[in-house]
Amino acid sequence: LSPFCRQIRLALAEKGLLFELKEESVWPPSPDFLSVNPAGTVPVLIDDRQSEGVAVVTPAGPIGEYLEEVYPEPPLLPKTPVDRAECRRLVAWFNEKFHTEVTLNLLFEKVHKRYAGFGAPDMDQVREGVENIHSHLDYISRLADDRRWLAGDDFTLADLVAAAHISSIDYLGDVPWWNYEPAKVWYVKMKSRPSFRPLLKDRIPGVPPPRHYGDLDF
Amino acid sequence: LSPFCRQIRLALAEKGLLFELKEESVWPPSPDFLSVNPAGTVPVLIDDRQSEGVAVVTPAGPIGEYLEEVYPEPPLLPKTPVDRAECRRLVAWFNEKFHTEVTLNLLFEKVHKRYAGFGAPDMDQVREGVENIHSHLDYISRLADDRRWLAGDDFTLADLVAAAHISSIDYLGDVPWWNYEPAKVWYVKMKSRPSFRPLLKDRIPGVPPPRHYGDLDF
Repeated sequence: LSPFCRQIRLALAEKGLLFELKEESVWPPSPDFLSVNPAGTVPVLIDDRQSEGVAVVTPAGPIGEYLEEVYPEPPLLPKTPVDRAECRRLVAWFNEKFHTEVTLNLLFEKVHKRYAGFGAPDMDQVREGVENIHSHLDYISRLADDRRWLAGDDFTLADLVAAAHISSIDYLGDVPWWNYEPAKVWYVKMKSRPSFRPLLKDRIPGVPPPRHYGDLDF
Repeated sequence: LSPFCRQIRLALAEKGLLFELKEESVWPPSPDFLSVNPAGTVPVLIDDRQSEGVAVVTPAGPIGEYLEEVYPEPPLLPKTPVDRAECRRLVAWFNEKFHTEVTLNLLFEKVHKRYAGFGAPDMDQVREGVENIHSHLDYISRLADDRRWLAGDDFTLADLVAAAHISSIDYLGDVPWWNYEPAKVWYVKMKSRPSFRPLLKDRIPGVPPPRHYGDLDF
């Protein structure tokens, strides 16, 4: 359910790149994994298609930029520097702001803590996450009202990153869709893309998603 | 002392771009500022040199990419996608990992909280920050031992971002330089650059830096 892995899985699929997923248990990271990524975090992209040698790229932000540089078609960043800046602003919005205000409070407390053996969720944090998600859905709704896609006319990495974060929270049943129709319409468009299908089939043992999670007409 | 503003001030100076600094009080952000950056964070770059109109770019990561695209000389990212990925990995290391493990525990607790009226520093957090900085200085030392600059042969954004974070903590006197000679030698090189001079003259009212802060031979 890592939204950072999910955004890269989506980007790889959108670019038509076949890849093999390897699961890594990062609480705590193994010495082997730390020798690959000293930060001990996922995702890590191992690209062995380059003639100059195997490229090891991490974390999610740099992987997105790397994929765009090395596999530019179809593009996931807009054409002009100003439009690219707007796309990257939204990527940072979800990977930094949404992550801190929502994902850490919900996904980390409810799921990761249990797997890492860090004990029970802190219900104050969970309540904060449940509360914080409203302003983000409102923001997505306003963007989706004004623009074809979140960053503008083009479908971009910003849509993938936003949908990756939302999808992890949606798996927990914590997205109050009923209040945010334009955000919901945008998310249904995202869910309908072939790149999204594998994510909708993911299941965490012992944590079943709500019924609407994999549903395209929810 | 914001390491995110500092890295952009350094990048602008390295690229020889003149700029005007505007102070923004972001606890809480004003409605006017939120209309410029709905995330309510600094830095925000307002670029009025473009013929297509004024560009508003935020946060620090996207500003770095924008500057490189629009003002490519001198370059602050390496030439190949793999080398750029390594540079961006280190930028993310400092802006994400160092920030969470060190900067938030020290700068936020000791300085920002006071200005934001959030009360006294949490001494457990401060102790954690003081402890966490060691592994980062050790990592910088190992990189500085192996390479000419942190990301490889070239002086890059990674050096600026790392030095920006270190400089904010050094202002507080919390960098245990004596144990990390190669990191210190690298930081003296950074401090000696003309781009660094304005940062070394910054003073926070009521919080004087230690004597060595502005010193090139400390």
